[in-house]
Amino acid sequence: MAVVRKSFDLKNYIEKSTHAVNDALDFFLPNENVKPTTIHKAMRYSLFAGGKRMRPALVLAAAEACGGSWKPAMPLACAVECIHTYSLIHDDLPAMDNDDYRRGKLTNHKVFGEGIAVLAGDALLTQAFEIAAQCKSWPRYSHQKIILEIAQASGSLQLIAGQVADLEGEGKKTSEAQLKYIHERKTSALLCCSVRLGGMSANCTAAQLKALTDFGYNVGLAFQVIDDILDVTQTSEQLGKTAGKDTAAQKATYPSIVGLPKSRKIAEQLTNKAFAALKVFKGKAQALEGLAEYLLKRDK
Amino acid sequence: MAVVRKSFDLKNYIEKSTHAVNDALDFFLPNENVKPTTIHKAMRYSLFAGGKRMRPALVLAAAEACGGSWKPAMPLACAVECIHTYSLIHDDLPAMDNDDYRRGKLTNHKVFGEGIAVLAGDALLTQAFEIAAQCKSWPRYSHQKIILEIAQASGSLQLIAGQVADLEGEGKKTSEAQLKYIHERKTSALLCCSVRLGGMSANCTAAQLKALTDFGYNVGLAFQVIDDILDVTQTSEQLGKTAGKDTAAQKATYPSIVGLPKSRKIAEQLTNKAFAALKVFKGKAQALEGLAEYLLKRDK
Repeated sequence: MAVVRKSFDLKNYIEKSTHAVNDALDFFLPNENVKPTTIHKAMRYSLFAGGKRMRPALVLAAAEACGGSWKPAMPLACAVECIHTYSLIHDDLPAMDNDDYRRGKLTNHKVFGEGIAVLAGDALLTQAFEIAAQCKSWPRYSHQKIILEIAQASGSLQLIAGQVADLEGEGKKTSEAQLKYIHERKTSALLCCSVRLGGMSANCTAAQLKALTDFGYNVGLAFQVIDDILDVTQTSEQLGKTAGKDTAAQKATYPSIVGLPKSRKIAEQLTNKAFAALKVFKGKAQALEGLAEYLLKRDK
Repeated sequence: MAVVRKSFDLKNYIEKSTHAVNDALDFFLPNENVKPTTIHKAMRYSLFAGGKRMRPALVLAAAEACGGSWKPAMPLACAVECIHTYSLIHDDLPAMDNDDYRRGKLTNHKVFGEGIAVLAGDALLTQAFEIAAQCKSWPRYSHQKIILEIAQASGSLQLIAGQVADLEGEGKKTSEAQLKYIHERKTSALLCCSVRLGGMSANCTAAQLKALTDFGYNVGLAFQVIDDILDVTQTSEQLGKTAGKDTAAQKATYPSIVGLPKSRKIAEQLTNKAFAALKVFKGKAQALEGLAEYLLKRDK
């Protein structure tokens, strides 16, 4: 196994998948010169603002783990990226997190105004379903099932629930259970959905889908706990973004609630669970393993 | 025909369909006590704020015209109502039309705050796809086709395009062509989609779908032209809302661009086209005819 793992070139994988996803997004999205040009410029501004394309890469890698290929998974990879981007545009709005910058670039509403930013988010969410509906389906994984999967992960019980709880929790005392609730919904829900969709695009077995669900859930939650830890332990320089931002915004984090040692323990346990879930793929999950390492064994 | 028409009780039809649609929406939407309660309260607040349920009624009536029944059409009726409601919530935001009241009730953001109002709109849009995916499908009208139909009518080239053009046009000189572009997208697109979805739920023929498309397009545009005319000719008391609001907001209207006589001529032509499109249904389109009369032969 160690030899196989060494032969996997993650950097190359991320470069290639990012390139393929960018091409596909460019294909699916209306051009900037399509009327009304403002909305298409705004949609593309945030969609091509340097996102790491982690969710699409997870879709593609999950498809591979189940013996599938990139092509039938690509519409689903693009759909989850549209949903991720819409959620960032709306989260950045003055009425929400009120952020002026994201990844070193002005946020959507700072460039296009609040009205267009709301509509650009709406349009990307709508576009996600239009793109997803163009995927290949299987008797076991019909378009109906795929649309339900995306709608539920993005809806008022998952992704949006996380943002609501986050919004309502600011400045208030948060319990560990509440923080877990927020992280599960803001991060795990769409990561879990991403790998499940990849599996579905490859007509995966029920056992594979279960493994992907466990993997996605644990990777998502671990990612968020690690994010909380790094916000406390690293300097802004190391992170490449403002450190201590959560503390400053009075946002609850794992270290602020359970302390740093227990946070590290939780992160380790979740990480172990994530990797353990991949055993069922017997070496075909190299890309998933690589991506999980990239997401979880980081110092920024 | 006159005898048949007289026997149709529109008031009763609207009451019954509204009741059935309200029950179905109540069934599909998470209860107010489901966590996070705020978002479900906000979604339900606007969804049950006294909307006339015209779009769902058109879905059901179109299904009937094609020999179908309400039950398989109901998820689609609910989906279009969710989309209509989300678009109203977002249109009312301070960054858009900045309205404090709708149908005599405080707008969503006035009750729940801007952040939650944005998220409630997002959640209703997402919910629309979740509900629509639960409809019955046919070989000719697969879930794929139905999701694409809804996504395209609601997307950046139609419903959202209308709102963008409206937002960008305020206070600027607007041509008749531009105004038509806005009305087609803000109103016709979703009305047209509604009747087409009703037809699809009844496994309609290609000729029936074409007729529904013509009907929906013309009803939608006629409705909007008549709205513009009434805004100029009726008093606030007659309308039950502020008259002359468009003029005050410097919004372009048909009367302001082409004058009142030509506006009336255009409305009449569109209305005639709408009714003419229903001939193909040979008397089975009573409910559609009744609804079109209600929408187009009104004085408020």
